[in-house]
Amino acid sequence: MECVYTGKTKDVYSLENGNYLLKFKDDVTGENGVFDPGANTVGLTIEGAGKAGLRLSKFLFEILRDKGVPTHYIDANIEEATMTVKPAKVFGNGLEVICRYRAVGSFLRRYGMYAKEEQPLDALVEFTLKDDSRQDPPITEDALVMLGILSSEEYKAIKDLTKKIAGIVKDELAKKGIELYDIKFEFGRVGKDKQIALIDEISGGNMRAYKDGKSIEPLLLEKLMLED
Amino acid sequence: MECVYTGKTKDVYSLENGNYLLKFKDDVTGENGVFDPGANTVGLTIEGAGKAGLRLSKFLFEILRDKGVPTHYIDANIEEATMTVKPAKVFGNGLEVICRYRAVGSFLRRYGMYAKEEQPLDALVEFTLKDDSRQDPPITEDALVMLGILSSEEYKAIKDLTKKIAGIVKDELAKKGIELYDIKFEFGRVGKDKQIALIDEISGGNMRAYKDGKSIEPLLLEKLMLED
Repeated sequence: MECVYTGKTKDVYSLENGNYLLKFKDDVTGENGVFDPGANTVGLTIEGAGKAGLRLSKFLFEILRDKGVPTHYIDANIEEATMTVKPAKVFGNGLEVICRYRAVGSFLRRYGMYAKEEQPLDALVEFTLKDDSRQDPPITEDALVMLGILSSEEYKAIKDLTKKIAGIVKDELAKKGIELYDIKFEFGRVGKDKQIALIDEISGGNMRAYKDGKSIEPLLLEKLMLED
Repeated sequence: MECVYTGKTKDVYSLENGNYLLKFKDDVTGENGVFDPGANTVGLTIEGAGKAGLRLSKFLFEILRDKGVPTHYIDANIEEATMTVKPAKVFGNGLEVICRYRAVGSFLRRYGMYAKEEQPLDALVEFTLKDDSRQDPPITEDALVMLGILSSEEYKAIKDLTKKIAGIVKDELAKKGIELYDIKFEFGRVGKDKQIALIDEISGGNMRAYKDGKSIEPLLLEKLMLED
């Protein structure tokens, strides 16, 4: 089993059958010890964060599978903190696609002249480039198409899929009295038919969630979501 | 005649008949004494820059008038460095709309992972918010609509008008062997029928122009464009 990629919060191993194994780490993104799902740096290490993130990912990926939403997920081993996934080809060098239900984070920093903090947003979708050295710049459909990163059809398919998946996650959180403010996804082409599918993970580190008006850290979110 | 606004490169006076007078100054945008049309600060003062900018604006606004493109322009007095314009209502607190033919400036800084310097772009249109304190953030159609700054129809109308006007300017520059790399515009609603129209100016300070592979400063551009 060969380690083919070392990420901020996960390592990736190639399996002999062509699939991949994601090993979840206890590192979470943030700055100066404060969790921030929009950050590009590892801000802190929380014991158990890896397994907690994997548990929530497994829970949500299996709901998506039941609903027929294409993802790279095959199965997960909580004890080992690993998830087995199908190989995927990302768009360009990787995109992050954000769905926003309330104005917080980078959206508010950019558009604070017009947006009030926590103002409701109607599932606003934003695309950003994965580019740490340029702070993951937001990018429009026109620029994505002109730079050959996505076709117009791919852009629309990913945008629609983003709204659909975010809506499913939002509903699951709502069942526990938790409100989803925003969530970010990655997509790739998966399988022989190269279907556009959700890849990466769906854990507390990828979203901002609030309960009773207070921000919920990833570990607590996963506890609240998975306890009986 | 009352001064109603003091801008970085122009002052605005209200006239008794309801129109406005723009007084062009010799200040140009840039940083540390270097001209940069994308900058938000006055970088340097060049004697004669105001009148030169006005001359090119007058020249181009009159071409647009001949072609039936709606603008706020009425007439210009070069000696006084003033332009008379119709009153206009901007969208939100003001937008800048950029048309790009080559990858330079902020586009390259944002998308340098994919774009090569000076790579051709097919009249790519970008919208940014006029917000000095947030470095004029780029914004998507979806976000403009959700924040109530533009309707989808207004977005499309402004985008189409931007491509049309930029194409006209590009053709005029090409007649002098000059290549337009990018240009930025402002739009507003003008007149009784609140038609969407080009406002502000169209001078060297709003565009990047190159001749024989070399960047042309605003004053030289205006000289090359207006000499016989």
